[in-house]
This record gives sequence, structure tokens and C-alpha cells, in this order.
Amino acid sequence: MSAPRSVTDELLAAALAHEADFPGSRAVVPAKHITIVTCMDSRIDVFRIFGLDEGDAHVIRNAGGLVTDDVLRSLVLSQRFLETREVVLVHHTDCGLQRFREEELQATLTREAGAPPPYSFGAFDDIDAAVRRAVARVAEHRFLPHRTHVRGFVYDVATGHLREVRA
Amino acid sequence: MSAPRSVTDELLAAALAHEADFPGSRAVVPAKHITIVTCMDSRIDVFRIFGLDEGDAHVIRNAGGLVTDDVLRSLVLSQRFLETREVVLVHHTDCGLQRFREEELQATLTREAGAPPPYSFGAFDDIDAAVRRAVARVAEHRFLPHRTHVRGFVYDVATGHLREVRA
Repeated sequence: MSAPRSVTDELLAAALAHEADFPGSRAVVPAKHITIVTCMDSRIDVFRIFGLDEGDAHVIRNAGGLVTDDVLRSLVLSQRFLETREVVLVHHTDCGLQRFREEELQATLTREAGAPPPYSFGAFDDIDAAVRRAVARVAEHRFLPHRTHVRGFVYDVATGHLREVRA
Repeated sequence: MSAPRSVTDELLAAALAHEADFPGSRAVVPAKHITIVTCMDSRIDVFRIFGLDEGDAHVIRNAGGLVTDDVLRSLVLSQRFLETREVVLVHHTDCGLQRFREEELQATLTREAGAPPPYSFGAFDDIDAAVRRAVARVAEHRFLPHRTHVRGFVYDVATGHLREVRA
């Protein structure tokens, strides 16, 4: 009797089919010289939304699309060594981080794991304020050479509408 | 005379076309209950490689696909509140982080920005060792409830081949 297939095994079968249909290699420097930062949310297919092709843009994603130190580290490498010059920051509606309060998250984890987690989760109330904070964090990071084209958006996962958040 | 269009403006036009062709809303919980962690590299279209549809999987990306604290934060939210249970970690060939040495990166930044950056870049030599470290960091993170299905891979950006790195 064979072991039950995991979802990972399903994905590997898809990757094998993709290899057979591989579009060809591309340069390491993104053709569009742009980086997109967004949430890990499963409803955001960055390449599809922005009409991107392989090789076009760097894509950075974490829970919330927050501009954490790790995102700044990635952006610095993207701009300084791989020639990107614009940044698009995308938060989205119905985000998990907007449904929880930081204190609740910390309390739940501490209770269930027996210790407080070694990081803050970054829960937020006001999505426009969160986008503005993200834009400001990029704009203020002195290690980034390109901080003129940094714009923030909210993607509506129910309609596909992308709304810009003005400063 | 109108202002020259930025690449961001080009992407916004694509997003408008996408909205007109929006596939419909999906549930917040990923249908395949899986999270993929990989590099920001522009040649990695996660949805296409793994045959994913909107709503299928969480996608976390940073420079290198390293398992940083920010990735652990994201994975904890993914597993504890959004019901994912498997993790796929993907590094890739021709990665910027494999072409530099940490000391060089730190020295360049310090020289050009006038101060050392407030993070390590995570440069690595041996990609298989880097994948094993990434798998180990997830496997050892006590705040993650699902650590049985954690597998690591190297994606060849020249051929599309995905190679598993065994423990």
C-alpha cells in the first residue's frame, strides 16, 4: 500500500509539468526594475494582478505585507545589487492581521506554547494608516538608494480593485 | 506635457485590466492548507510553478527565501489562525545571496551609507546547507503547531527543475 499523497506531493507533480513547459531562462536583474511588497494571502497572485512575466519584478511577501526589518534587508539587496528603483506596497482587505489585536495574539500564543513568541505580530486596526506607515518606513530607510517612487495600495480581495492610499 | 509614466503606472494599468477579469472571491483559509516560502527573485512565479489557483496557498518571500524571524512570525499566523499544515521551502540557483560574502555586503553598505545596516544580509556559500538550515529553523520553532510536513528544495532558474534537498 502506498503512502497517502501530501499536498506537497501534488505541488511537486505540478512543478514537474511546469518544468516540461519551462518558458526559458531570464536575467537575474528584474526587467521592470521594480519590487512589489505584499501579504502572503493566498488570494493575491502578484504576477497575474500586475500582468508580470517571469523575470520582470522582485516580489516580497509576509503576513500583512508589513515593512519589517526583513523586508528592508530584502529591498536593500534588490535596489543596491539588482537594480530595482521603484517600490509598490500592497495591503489588502479581509487581512488576518486586521481581525486580531496584538495583545490577543500574544496571549493566545503564550498560553498555548507556554512562552511568549520572540516577535510582535504587527496586528493593525486602520488599513490606510498601516499602508502609510509602510510607505514611510521605506521612505525613511537611509540604506535604500531609491526612495522617490514608493507608493502604497489596498487590494480588495472581493473585487480585485486596487486603491491607492495617498500620503 | 504629461509626466512620464513610471513602471508603477504601467503595473496599475495591468491591475485595472485584471479587475475587469477578476476570477471571483475566495475564502481566506488557503484551500490547499499549505505555505510556500521562497526568494523574491523575479524568475520565480510561484503560482505558475506549482499550478496554484487564487485562494490555494500562502506565499512568503524575501531575499534568499531565508527562514528569518519575520518568516516564522508569518508561518505562525498561517498555521495557527489560517489552518495551513504543510510548508515548502524553496531556494534557487543563481541567487544574489550566494554571490556575495556577508563581510563584503556589510563593508559596502557601511562605506556607502556611512553606518552599518541594522541587520545581517544572510549571504550563504552552500545552497544545500542553506536549505537544510531553513528546514531546521521551521522544524525547531515551538510556536508552530505543524512541523511534520516541512520539505526543502532548490529551484533551477535556468531549467525550471525543482530538486529536493534531503535532510
